[in-house]
Amino acid sequence: MDERLKRQLDFALEIDKEKNIFRQTHLSGHGRNENDAEHAWHMAIMAYLFREYSNEQVDIAKVMLMCLIHDIVEIDAGDTYAYDDASLMTQKNREDEAKERIFSLLPTDQKEELIRLFDEFEEYQTAEAKFAHAMDNLQPLMLNHSNGGSDWREHQVHASQVYGRQSKTRLGSEALFQVIDSMIQEHIQKGNIKE
Amino acid sequence: MDERLKRQLDFALEIDKEKNIFRQTHLSGHGRNENDAEHAWHMAIMAYLFREYSNEQVDIAKVMLMCLIHDIVEIDAGDTYAYDDASLMTQKNREDEAKERIFSLLPTDQKEELIRLFDEFEEYQTAEAKFAHAMDNLQPLMLNHSNGGSDWREHQVHASQVYGRQSKTRLGSEALFQVIDSMIQEHIQKGNIKE
Repeated sequence: MDERLKRQLDFALEIDKEKNIFRQTHLSGHGRNENDAEHAWHMAIMAYLFREYSNEQVDIAKVMLMCLIHDIVEIDAGDTYAYDDASLMTQKNREDEAKERIFSLLPTDQKEELIRLFDEFEEYQTAEAKFAHAMDNLQPLMLNHSNGGSDWREHQVHASQVYGRQSKTRLGSEALFQVIDSMIQEHIQKGNIKE
Repeated sequence: MDERLKRQLDFALEIDKEKNIFRQTHLSGHGRNENDAEHAWHMAIMAYLFREYSNEQVDIAKVMLMCLIHDIVEIDAGDTYAYDDASLMTQKNREDEAKERIFSLLPTDQKEELIRLFDEFEEYQTAEAKFAHAMDNLQPLMLNHSNGGSDWREHQVHASQVYGRQSKTRLGSEALFQVIDSMIQEHIQKGNIKE
């Protein structure tokens, strides 16, 4: 087998480990915790279905690929819960090291391409990055909403924390932010999110 | 919320159930059984990485989306093991009913679009369908190979069955079939696949 294909297969096998990285979000129907690969799959399909709500025109293939790969670094760095301030402080360093190790398994051109895409997502500047982030925010909120807000209750999350994250959803989609906002308001009223 | 967006969100939530449909394949590192959502996520990334090996030029966004949605019908129809002949006989009917119910949650235009894409995959005629099927075949084989062929041993699979499925991989990618063929030969020699 030639070296290029061997490296591509090594990377393809390595990312299998993303299926073992579990998140704080629970599956619908009060299911088990969700893992990163499932989350990424769900986001990519939602990006395609909801693309008409993006504030700006997007290259949807790019958004989908961004969604699919955005959590690969968590194979080494672990999942950082959106409302865990201590872990958030070390997240960037942990993820930079992981990015270098994991994408280096690929041939150089593909390593550089996927790192560019990963960095573009993280930098939150392009239309594609903003819309992919909107999916990263909407997908777990949708599941948590379907479960009566139990993830927020369990972690005693405050409205300011939820809005701190979700208000950036409007950078990608004003229309989807309106939906999210009404869900958050409902959960504040029910006491699932603290005021 | 308007009716269109409500339907799109209902569908997005419904497909969450795909994460509970488990396959015969085990994760690398002798892990647990893989579920359909994880399998689809893995296939879509592999399609992107390996697109240079497609026999024909493909619209990679279409291939990726095909990979992501190709198992949604299994939410109702269940997973049909590739080498379970009895289940294979009823698979088409079960999946047709599931397809109608699940995609009907969407607005009509998106229902029709996704059913067209699903049917295109099933019909195995276009370059995109052939390459997506190559990923559907390569991904579990790669995992099983990494686990020393334990899934084949457990199900006492014969070489004729493996080749019956995997030989169609060459319709999508001659280069990847060569890799697959050498893996199969290795497992026949080791006795993991029966002659």
